[in-house]
Amino acid sequence: MEFATPFEITKDFVQRLERAVEEQDERFIIESLRGVEPADVSLVLEELDSDESKYILMLLDQELAAEILSNLDEDVLLPFVAEFSAKELAGIVQEMESDDAVDLLLEISNQMRDEVIAHINDEEAQNNIIDLLRYDEDTAGGLMAKELIKANYKWNVVQTIEAIRQQAEDVEKIYSIYVVDDFDRLLGRVSLKEMLLAKEQTKVGDIYVPEINTISTDSTQEEVVEVMQHYDLEALPVVNARGRLVGRITIDDVIDVITEAAEDERNLMSGVSDNVEEDDSIWKLSRSRLPWLIIGMGGGMLAAKFIGNFENDLAVIPALAAFIPLITATGGNVGLQSSTLVVQSLANPLAIREPLIVRLLKVFGVAAINGLVLNAIVFGINMGMGLSWNLSMVVCIALYTVVMLSSVLGTLTPMVLEKLGINPAMASGPFITIANDLLGLTVYFTVAHLLLL
Amino acid sequence: MEFATPFEITKDFVQRLERAVEEQDERFIIESLRGVEPADVSLVLEELDSDESKYILMLLDQELAAEILSNLDEDVLLPFVAEFSAKELAGIVQEMESDDAVDLLLEISNQMRDEVIAHINDEEAQNNIIDLLRYDEDTAGGLMAKELIKANYKWNVVQTIEAIRQQAEDVEKIYSIYVVDDFDRLLGRVSLKEMLLAKEQTKVGDIYVPEINTISTDSTQEEVVEVMQHYDLEALPVVNARGRLVGRITIDDVIDVITEAAEDERNLMSGVSDNVEEDDSIWKLSRSRLPWLIIGMGGGMLAAKFIGNFENDLAVIPALAAFIPLITATGGNVGLQSSTLVVQSLANPLAIREPLIVRLLKVFGVAAINGLVLNAIVFGINMGMGLSWNLSMVVCIALYTVVMLSSVLGTLTPMVLEKLGINPAMASGPFITIANDLLGLTVYFTVAHLLLL
Repeated sequence: MEFATPFEITKDFVQRLERAVEEQDERFIIESLRGVEPADVSLVLEELDSDESKYILMLLDQELAAEILSNLDEDVLLPFVAEFSAKELAGIVQEMESDDAVDLLLEISNQMRDEVIAHINDEEAQNNIIDLLRYDEDTAGGLMAKELIKANYKWNVVQTIEAIRQQAEDVEKIYSIYVVDDFDRLLGRVSLKEMLLAKEQTKVGDIYVPEINTISTDSTQEEVVEVMQHYDLEALPVVNARGRLVGRITIDDVIDVITEAAEDERNLMSGVSDNVEEDDSIWKLSRSRLPWLIIGMGGGMLAAKFIGNFENDLAVIPALAAFIPLITATGGNVGLQSSTLVVQSLANPLAIREPLIVRLLKVFGVAAINGLVLNAIVFGINMGMGLSWNLSMVVCIALYTVVMLSSVLGTLTPMVLEKLGINPAMASGPFITIANDLLGLTVYFTVAHLLLL
Repeated sequence: MEFATPFEITKDFVQRLERAVEEQDERFIIESLRGVEPADVSLVLEELDSDESKYILMLLDQELAAEILSNLDEDVLLPFVAEFSAKELAGIVQEMESDDAVDLLLEISNQMRDEVIAHINDEEAQNNIIDLLRYDEDTAGGLMAKELIKANYKWNVVQTIEAIRQQAEDVEKIYSIYVVDDFDRLLGRVSLKEMLLAKEQTKVGDIYVPEINTISTDSTQEEVVEVMQHYDLEALPVVNARGRLVGRITIDDVIDVITEAAEDERNLMSGVSDNVEEDDSIWKLSRSRLPWLIIGMGGGMLAAKFIGNFENDLAVIPALAAFIPLITATGGNVGLQSSTLVVQSLANPLAIREPLIVRLLKVFGVAAINGLVLNAIVFGINMGMGLSWNLSMVVCIALYTVVMLSSVLGTLTPMVLEKLGINPAMASGPFITIANDLLGLTVYFTVAHLLLL
């Protein structure tokens, strides 16, 4: 047996492949990729130029090529696909699982897409793709594949096994056999295990399980994830408004959705606007970061303008400037903590939530406690260091107010964003920091002005 | 059929259950939970008191109770389990999948654990649990379950189906049948689909697929996730150092690992130290946040002390204070963006990385571009607002330096943390913000002091 620790792609291997492409050494290429899993071949191709990748892919079996193409990173997909004629692409696309085929077709231009579809010979694949293209990408319909195994409830085990034999060629992983009536309406499911253990003449209608989780084509991605994760499902049948079985969502696609959602959240939290990776170009990396930096700078300039109004106060008590970072940093931290907790709650909609008023009271409670602790420490240090009583009081009052206000702001912002249909994780990013900086400074200088001068 | 949109738990339903428990109305309880999926019963129990939950659980079938207990949220598990005697708990635990049983047993005290294990009647379940307890929780051994279907390569299809019939009772989801030799060494796999389509007398040894992904017991959780996600596996067999098949990891556990890793990262990024949820108590919420707030406050106080050294400069040019937030916020944002990108790279170890020197040069490149753009805007605004040429120059020089330094700091910190075995996401949190605040202030005031005074 082969102990498959993940295939290690070495620079050396990539270089030898490149040389083989240059020398058109077909045998070497085919030999060295034999037995390498499609997901690993994809990784190798991502290291090559598009024309080299195409040369290699065209040497391989179309079904294998289809799997490799399905696994290819989005970043390299577009220039890569541009190397192909519509007809060449159609030959590979019709071998892909229908959901992967549609994902790929959605990346290319409308014109090219129509041409590729027109060139697909396999009528079933063509119909599947045309059908799936109707659904919004972010819905259950956009996630599902058409490939699944279904059996009429009137069939017996022998007939069903024969049907599986015919359908199974297109279906990589079976999971359950879906039982339907004469109008393709979903009735329930039979597992392969039960099929294997049942007597030959048993009717499917007598052994199927009528309880089955389903989801409708227009459910959101998030609902799909929620249902599949909550019930530990590896496949979820999708039905249309009339209860007809139209597709199936598999767990691998759900994992991709979960991973992408986590990445989006991470990007939003850190102020990176695109889906970038470290090995993207300097230009792409700069562009992905500049928007938030410029917005942050705008906040900083507003703060500068604001503090400028207090220049006279600062000239009298320059020590006032010293606590600016303390106020802004604490406000930022408190706001971030609060918003993150709400984002987490929003991502977990199945749990029963306490009423809004209770949630806000708790936010106040936590802020009150934490504000007290922080103030006690800060006041102690300030006194110990011989800071004036008055300035110490100003810092403490401002700090306490900032902790309270930032907590509320951090709690409400993601709720409002969610209502507006914006990813609430946006609130955990530079956004809340900027708002809190300005809020904190306003409180601090207002208190100082009132108490000290 | 039942269109199972996720079961909606209403307050009303919970209250009626509570009343039924009070009145010991067993029939009502059993009737109203009939047909509710175990995962949903768990959600209901999470809303009840521990003694009420126990009363309900003891009315149900032990196998069902086991599934419900497996799904229970960690937060309520401990007080809940404390309601049970060791013997009662043993009765339920022995019906759980072995990995879930071990997860539960690891939550309770050593003494209670030993007692529960001693009370387990099912010898196989007992041995499985004792075996699994040997492995570190964060390894493949800690993730795997003992339940799986295996077949000797000498068996034919009929013998194998008979073996599946015997083993299948314990195995909720089969996925693949693992083929082993006489010493239990893993040779490969056969899918149920192939079993179903093969002739009765065919030997398993003739139809199994010898290529199979495996992982060893001491591999890390992250390696498990990587392999299963990369190869789109729904189950991964685990072998020991001698190649013997010892367990199996299923995709639902991997999804839990992915989700938890994302939550940990979110907490680290936002400075929340525990795994808290919005409906935890005010005390728990406060405690989870105070550590980072206090550290942040420490940073703020250091900054105050530092700025205090420049009081004389501030007295002469109070406008200097105005740009403190701009400098600290920009440094924070740049550092956060840089660290996040590295954290993302570290989480995706399969991709080929550019050499460290190239990565750092790119970091400098991106920082140089972004610094220039920001400076051009800030300088323009400052000139437009009639700020002195000298102060404008100080702000620009400091801003540019901070952008460069924070980029490098944000890039190196997660790399160093990773080397030290600390979750690198720690670097994307308040940590990097504090470091950058202090760094930025040092640069700003040093430049100001040198150029202005």
